[in-house]
Amino acid sequence: MENKINLEDKLIRTDLVMELVDENNEDMVVEKLDDITITTVNVKKETSSKIGKKEGIYVTISFDDITNFETREKVGKALEMEIAKIIKRLNIKEDYECLVIGLGNVKSTPDALGPLVIQNTLVTRHLFILNTNIKDGMRKVSAISPGVMGTTGIETSDIIKAIVDKIKPDFVITIDSLAALSIDRVNKTIQMTDTGIHPGSGIGNHRKEISKDTINVPVIAIGVPTVVESATIVNDTINYLFKHLSYMKSNLDKSKLTFTKFDDYEEKIKNHNLDDNEKKEVLGLIGLLDENDKKALILEVLNSLNYNLMVTPKEIDFIIAKLSDVIASSINNSLHRQITHY
Amino acid sequence: MENKINLEDKLIRTDLVMELVDENNEDMVVEKLDDITITTVNVKKETSSKIGKKEGIYVTISFDDITNFETREKVGKALEMEIAKIIKRLNIKEDYECLVIGLGNVKSTPDALGPLVIQNTLVTRHLFILNTNIKDGMRKVSAISPGVMGTTGIETSDIIKAIVDKIKPDFVITIDSLAALSIDRVNKTIQMTDTGIHPGSGIGNHRKEISKDTINVPVIAIGVPTVVESATIVNDTINYLFKHLSYMKSNLDKSKLTFTKFDDYEEKIKNHNLDDNEKKEVLGLIGLLDENDKKALILEVLNSLNYNLMVTPKEIDFIIAKLSDVIASSINNSLHRQITHY
Amino acid sequence: MENKINLEDKLIRTDLVMELVDENNEDMVVEKLDDITITTVNVKKETSSKIGKKEGIYVTISFDDITNFETREKVGKALEMEIAKIIKRLNIKEDYECLVIGLGNVKSTPDALGPLVIQNTLVTRHLFILNTNIKDGMRKVSAISPGVMGTTGIETSDIIKAIVDKIKPDFVITIDSLAALSIDRVNKTIQMTDTGIHPGSGIGNHRKEISKDTINVPVIAIGVPTVVESATIVNDTINYLFKHLSYMKSNLDKSKLTFTKFDDYEEKIKNHNLDDNEKKEVLGLIGLLDENDKKALILEVLNSLNYNLMVTPKEIDFIIAKLSDVIASSINNSLHRQITHY
Amino acid sequence: MENKINLEDKLIRTDLVMELVDENNEDMVVEKLDDITITTVNVKKETSSKIGKKEGIYVTISFDDITNFETREKVGKALEMEIAKIIKRLNIKEDYECLVIGLGNVKSTPDALGPLVIQNTLVTRHLFILNTNIKDGMRKVSAISPGVMGTTGIETSDIIKAIVDKIKPDFVITIDSLAALSIDRVNKTIQMTDTGIHPGSGIGNHRKEISKDTINVPVIAIGVPTVVESATIVNDTINYLFKHLSYMKSNLDKSKLTFTKFDDYEEKIKNHNLDDNEKKEVLGLIGLLDENDKKALILEVLNSLNYNLMVTPKEIDFIIAKLSDVIASSINNSLHRQITHY
Repeated sequence: MENKINLEDKLIRTDLVMELVDENNEDMVVEKLDDITITTVNVKKETSSKIGKKEGIYVTISFDDITNFETREKVGKALEMEIAKIIKRLNIKEDYECLVIGLGNVKSTPDALGPLVIQNTLVTRHLFILNTNIKDGMRKVSAISPGVMGTTGIETSDIIKAIVDKIKPDFVITIDSLAALSIDRVNKTIQMTDTGIHPGSGIGNHRKEISKDTINVPVIAIGVPTVVESATIVNDTINYLFKHLSYMKSNLDKSKLTFTKFDDYEEKIKNHNLDDNEKKEVLGLIGLLDENDKKALILEVLNSLNYNLMVTPKEIDFIIAKLSDVIASSINNSLHRQITHY
Repeated sequence: MENKINLEDKLIRTDLVMELVDENNEDMVVEKLDDITITTVNVKKETSSKIGKKEGIYVTISFDDITNFETREKVGKALEMEIAKIIKRLNIKEDYECLVIGLGNVKSTPDALGPLVIQNTLVTRHLFILNTNIKDGMRKVSAISPGVMGTTGIETSDIIKAIVDKIKPDFVITIDSLAALSIDRVNKTIQMTDTGIHPGSGIGNHRKEISKDTINVPVIAIGVPTVVESATIVNDTINYLFKHLSYMKSNLDKSKLTFTKFDDYEEKIKNHNLDDNEKKEVLGLIGLLDENDKKALILEVLNSLNYNLMVTPKEIDFIIAKLSDVIASSINNSLHRQITHY
Repeated sequence: MENKINLEDKLIRTDLVMELVDENNEDMVVEKLDDITITTVNVKKETSSKIGKKEGIYVTISFDDITNFETREKVGKALEMEIAKIIKRLNIKEDYECLVIGLGNVKSTPDALGPLVIQNTLVTRHLFILNTNIKDGMRKVSAISPGVMGTTGIETSDIIKAIVDKIKPDFVITIDSLAALSIDRVNKTIQMTDTGIHPGSGIGNHRKEISKDTINVPVIAIGVPTVVESATIVNDTINYLFKHLSYMKSNLDKSKLTFTKFDDYEEKIKNHNLDDNEKKEVLGLIGLLDENDKKALILEVLNSLNYNLMVTPKEIDFIIAKLSDVIASSINNSLHRQITHY
Repeated sequence: MENKINLEDKLIRTDLVMELVDENNEDMVVEKLDDITITTVNVKKETSSKIGKKEGIYVTISFDDITNFETREKVGKALEMEIAKIIKRLNIKEDYECLVIGLGNVKSTPDALGPLVIQNTLVTRHLFILNTNIKDGMRKVSAISPGVMGTTGIETSDIIKAIVDKIKPDFVITIDSLAALSIDRVNKTIQMTDTGIHPGSGIGNHRKEISKDTINVPVIAIGVPTVVESATIVNDTINYLFKHLSYMKSNLDKSKLTFTKFDDYEEKIKNHNLDDNEKKEVLGLIGLLDENDKKALILEVLNSLNYNLMVTPKEIDFIIAKLSDVIASSINNSLHRQITHY
């Protein structure tokens, strides 16, 4: 397979492997559960070096609207099942102790996913210590929200390493907010991997690598893209513009540039695009820039203006609340054989 | 004076009069207090019809960073002073009863400004009813957060009218999140007017007009732009792109489109722009679209994708908290002759 | 039947009819659903005048621990069923519009139940106004949190009357925190009645009567006791002291007053008590005071010390969150024929 | 001096040294600043062993109402001054790095003081690491909220030790909610000591000792009593009852036990009390129990009922918010020579 973007490109910031590998990648398996899609990518050596992500399994659950009760039920079941699979694949036994880590900043809504999941995580480790209220089927579980460097002054990975060294869990689960390349995936995707998390990813850049290589126990990383860079929306818009105009090519004159909305517009324009001459005609030199140069230019303009912006859906608070509910109970259900108390 | 935008334009959505009138408008007075700027515009008949805002006084306090303690002190003093002026201008006596209304949705950070101000508003009306703990210099003040239509199911203006009819205050102060045309003003501007609030403004569009015309008592409206439409950032970027490229004209070839950042870049490029031929060269047909058509096109592309996005600074939660503190204590200080208890 | 307390008594503050009528009251029906109990009292004229509660139906759902997942499921089902019954009894048709009112102060945890329920109430009235997204089986529902007099400065009943007059719902559901006489019922009881709410009840005393008599539409009141007065715990303790000492009578000398805990202690001591001579011996003159005089004395001592205290379980925040979840979804389920979106 | 309570007593639970030493203790210095009182106790070997508190300095700032703006200003200044003194006494230099630790559970209001202070603590350590935005007069400061065992499953002291070992601060400041013996001190007292914190204290019992002995760097502990045990209020009431009745002795007959409130009642009754015969007459055998046996009896009755209750003022949420503001800015001001950004 060939990768969509060149590795040198420091601009592209995504944690979603899905956005980096081709649809027709032979190591990708796609399942459909009604309206939710589960994509499993087994990133091997070659792909790994191409897309700059660690070798390992990357599972992505895609859905449309988590605020829909039925969707939530399905996503929950699917996530529970996929966590169970990964736990099995990693040979994690029933009596292995787990530390759940909620990364991010609880005071910044789009970055609050991790800490909110922790608030609903069923912790039991202290019950084993105090030897009280232990129920059959319970696993030893602890949970922390280390915060972010901006509010603690401490590198998050340092806090995590210190605690892991102290309490010595057998494996770790992290929950984090991610960055996506495309707005279409924001709050509509849960990615899970057995490779842990890695520098530079995430919206807050709030940590160095957390993986078996750095803390010596398996790290299952669960993440949801909750924002895109403001540069992304500018870039997406320009790209959609091309598709849109190509779709409207027949009447490509200034007077008729505007139009009214069609049903399944997105579907319709998907396979449209302008050729280079058309692009130049419509968008001049900018139209001729390749993806990276175009994005570079946009980023530079925004950066020179010292903007530190993010783009989120207007219902972000409500959506994050629902996402954290689903993820927390899926984790609880897959860690403990039976829970009746949360 | 001539207005910057044509009235027919349904796209332009700003509540800031400052963004609609010319710098050289003879009815505009600009004062400097160190690094904060107070702009007072007296919108008269002619301007009113041109910019589509009610006749009246519009005071804008502009500052750079409300999270800075000293800036906060200055902005607080200035706001207190300006509220006092408007109260005086409206002939509001010391014994007039005030109802403070915090508009917006407390569960959506950028829209939570109003409700957060209410949480810190010193209410006293019940003390007068119970005839207890009344301190010398206290004004009769009540406060409500009517919520937004999406969470109450009720038109916000209906809730307000109902309560005003019932408790009959002598005047009303509203606090609300606003929409701005330009990112430069987000969280850096407090606008106050004696004309109340009007349909279609604000990020939530969450109400019909609230003014002396609709509730029969003077309405002082205080607002802060806390978000911009996602279309705005796309448009802003393209405009900055022109200024940027014009500034770089000398080396206008694809290979050198990127550049490294300069000090006071914004200042430098302010008065640069490309002429039409250049715009066409750089951005093709799009480059030739006028402001409104360009924005129309961007909006249509985004809307056809069913995006409901907003653009905010990453520190929005912290900034909104500080803004609501400043506004609440300025209101408390200007409503009551002396307060020692909030 | 004879009532347990004399009506003149201004001290007794409970909203729970259960605490005021005798177990053997012929108008009381008790059902058991596993470990939860549903008690229905039909308060008729005579009882009404004796216990000082309006004539009508009072349903009480009693349970042990709402933080237990299975208990929550059962309580939810039971509540949903009982709301449906009352709606049927009141001849409320499927197309009748409902206003849900969350009473209390969201900033004071034990008083936050009402506002928290509102946050999870599915409102639809605006969809009917905008004529959009209306789903089959949806009822027209709106919801408000009027706040409390201490933070609005307005009598809560005035806000409610104003809004009811304006939007004219066909019936109202209120949710509120209640006061209980006994600690045993705190957070373990949901009371529902078709008689609305009445002055002096509730922890905040935060309103005048809200009932068909005052707003001209049926009012279904749902409430949970979340605190007891500090005087109650003093009084409860002294009473338990008697039962306890009577149970230990055999070794009633100072040296042996202390003892170690027994299983089902509460059960064991329930039917024990001291006779008057013993009470005098143990607790002197205080021991001879009747319930009301004793409570009067305790209240006076506490009041003269200007204490404004409440007694709550240490896990109150978590418990209130779970209670509001259960109540909100039961309301949603019983108001709408089918909901898939909350 | 002689101590008020016997050491064996496991019932007495207070973190306030003030409540354990005599007023006339020669090692106690009392200063008045208008209506606030600063009490400094130098606990030496003998007293230490008597009251079971570590040798060291204990400073207590007492005030009446932190929600009063002027009181807040004074308390802030005093606290800032006292922290500075202790820092000086411990020979902590300007370039020593500080770790601020907010103990407690942010989800339980009375226990949320520590975490709330952390939210407003100015952290700078990361600026020194990234070598950016360092302002003159800034100290290297980091801050964490380790949570409580019930929500992390980890002994809090383990988390703290792990992080201290990792980042090696030169000294630590802890903020915590405390337990008091008397309701009069709840939310009206800030205690600061150079001895750290010790097992069994605090409302949550949420940690083992944190002191120079355990983490090898000086620990300045700041605490505020925010609750009392429910047993305390029962006990306090009975004690006030005696004082009250002694004050009313002249008319000590059942019929007149009730009375109406007097001005400065508390003052008036302070020096009153009943002699043993009177106590027996009023409260029988219970009246003859000494403080500890009486409290033992109350505790046992409450414990056998499995109550896990706390007593707090009704405005606790608002009070805790104000307390955390004051403490956070006093810490910021005393740690950094000049701050203009928080």
